[in-house]
Amino acid sequence: MIHASAPGKAILLGEHSVVYRGPAIVLAIDLRAHIWAEERGGDGIWIEAPDIGASGHFDSSGRYHPIRGGSERWRSLNPIRVVALEAMRRLEAARGLRIRVESEIPPAEGLGSSAAISVATAAAVGRLLSGENLPKEMVCEIAYEGERIVHGTPSGIDNHVSTYGGALRYERGKGFERFKVEELPLIIGDSGRRRSTGGLVAKVRRLWERHREVVDAIIDAIAQLSEEGYKALREGNLKRLGELMDIDHGLLSALGVSTPELDRMVYAARSAGALGAKLTGAGGGGCIIALVEQPDRGRVAEAIRRVGGRPLRAGFTDIGVEVEEI
Amino acid sequence: MIHASAPGKAILLGEHSVVYRGPAIVLAIDLRAHIWAEERGGDGIWIEAPDIGASGHFDSSGRYHPIRGGSERWRSLNPIRVVALEAMRRLEAARGLRIRVESEIPPAEGLGSSAAISVATAAAVGRLLSGENLPKEMVCEIAYEGERIVHGTPSGIDNHVSTYGGALRYERGKGFERFKVEELPLIIGDSGRRRSTGGLVAKVRRLWERHREVVDAIIDAIAQLSEEGYKALREGNLKRLGELMDIDHGLLSALGVSTPELDRMVYAARSAGALGAKLTGAGGGGCIIALVEQPDRGRVAEAIRRVGGRPLRAGFTDIGVEVEEI
Repeated sequence: MIHASAPGKAILLGEHSVVYRGPAIVLAIDLRAHIWAEERGGDGIWIEAPDIGASGHFDSSGRYHPIRGGSERWRSLNPIRVVALEAMRRLEAARGLRIRVESEIPPAEGLGSSAAISVATAAAVGRLLSGENLPKEMVCEIAYEGERIVHGTPSGIDNHVSTYGGALRYERGKGFERFKVEELPLIIGDSGRRRSTGGLVAKVRRLWERHREVVDAIIDAIAQLSEEGYKALREGNLKRLGELMDIDHGLLSALGVSTPELDRMVYAARSAGALGAKLTGAGGGGCIIALVEQPDRGRVAEAIRRVGGRPLRAGFTDIGVEVEEI
Repeated sequence: MIHASAPGKAILLGEHSVVYRGPAIVLAIDLRAHIWAEERGGDGIWIEAPDIGASGHFDSSGRYHPIRGGSERWRSLNPIRVVALEAMRRLEAARGLRIRVESEIPPAEGLGSSAAISVATAAAVGRLLSGENLPKEMVCEIAYEGERIVHGTPSGIDNHVSTYGGALRYERGKGFERFKVEELPLIIGDSGRRRSTGGLVAKVRRLWERHREVVDAIIDAIAQLSEEGYKALREGNLKRLGELMDIDHGLLSALGVSTPELDRMVYAARSAGALGAKLTGAGGGGCIIALVEQPDRGRVAEAIRRVGGRPLRAGFTDIGVEVEEI
């Protein structure tokens, strides 16, 4: 049996603006999705996802036969099937498969849960079929097919960072750049509220349609800020980075994507000593990310808890997808 | 005895950005400061301010002799003395005066309390000394001397709007423009927390010094937005104006001048049906302003109360300074 795992991600700066212009700075975080894959006699793909109480069988025509959980669960499991099929297609190797998925990443909260699952699936199934680890580039491409099922036309940020780990700069038309980060002490605060990235991107688009010049000016400000934050991060100037995160949160609020829950966590983290705090991802729910130096970590985590959030002590990680035979 | 009264103000759009560029849109609101002035034998100026439990006598050398309240109260009463002296200087008429002040405007919360007191003082003392109403232009100029005592080098927005009433557009280098507003249904939510305009302007300046390009981009966005809001207001497009107010609140948060209390009131007002809501004035405490159509007024006021604010049902007013002999 093959086990693969891949990290989630958090956007440090540039969410929403990156859809228009300017960079997004994205970090791998050490919450991981795990996939176990093995061959199984018979036709099609069996998938178990105990986290969501679902298991079932996709037959070779793509029809879903639930074993546990309702038939509507096909939608959650289908990206895994699509990624496995894409791996088979590329490797010209069709097999019956049994795949089990477990994830530490809260789903639908902007932490790249779906990409991490797709990346781990691509790596596990690739290794199972070919007997060796696929090149990361190929893992990343195969995983992208799963992301397309979930997100329509995603940027590819999530599967990139989940494959390679570390810190990534992405800009439309300029692609991806991995860069070195020495130290980046984070706390993530989880609102527990799911949201749809696509829905929030569309919300900002509607705001832009009604107030083009104003929203363009805000996007310019975020793009500028993300560029400055990128420099501050590379220079290890965490104080400056934190200030820019605070400003960015206000700009995202101006775009209408913050919520009272997110604001409460952001204020709580700042008051408890965070160098900076902001929503991360599309907003409308999901998580905040706070930059917190060691001595203040306990206090910030407790402050987030006190206002109803769940602090995730998920650090920055350099470790991308990993595969092992077990 | 002469009675004069003058309205407070609320900034609709453009606070902070106006210090740099772009317009501020300012409204007179029907909370008023009242001054009663009469001659009194003897030397100097007697001032009573029952709202703050202070009364005392400034002798002709400017020394303060408290009658009620501590000697430190001279600072609160001194702008009234300065305005009265400026009126005497201009009218070449020195008298002993007794002045009583009462104000409906919560002080030090961005609603132009000090300017309204100065304007009413200038008008009352001017009428008392000259026997006729001074031209509004002169009232406004005399009142500015009081504002200088309180605020250093104020823009003159507050004494202008308090003198003339109505709606005012102000832009550095372009001066003041009164304009006609048909209807503007407002609710003000009062946090009860005093703050210093100068301190907050200095805070934004420090942010600008550390992050010039980013803060410049935010100021550009606010300036653009204030221009659009001015158009929307003149066209009577309240829905559009409300959306712009919402965006502006986020931009002011990005500048670091909002607070959890202000955010709570803003969210509460929006959820209860306000067309838009934002902090008004320098932030850091003070008030929010919400645009609320008639059917939603009760609900929005109640929502503000529920999150710990005090709703002030202070409407927009066209009535500036008024003077009468009683």
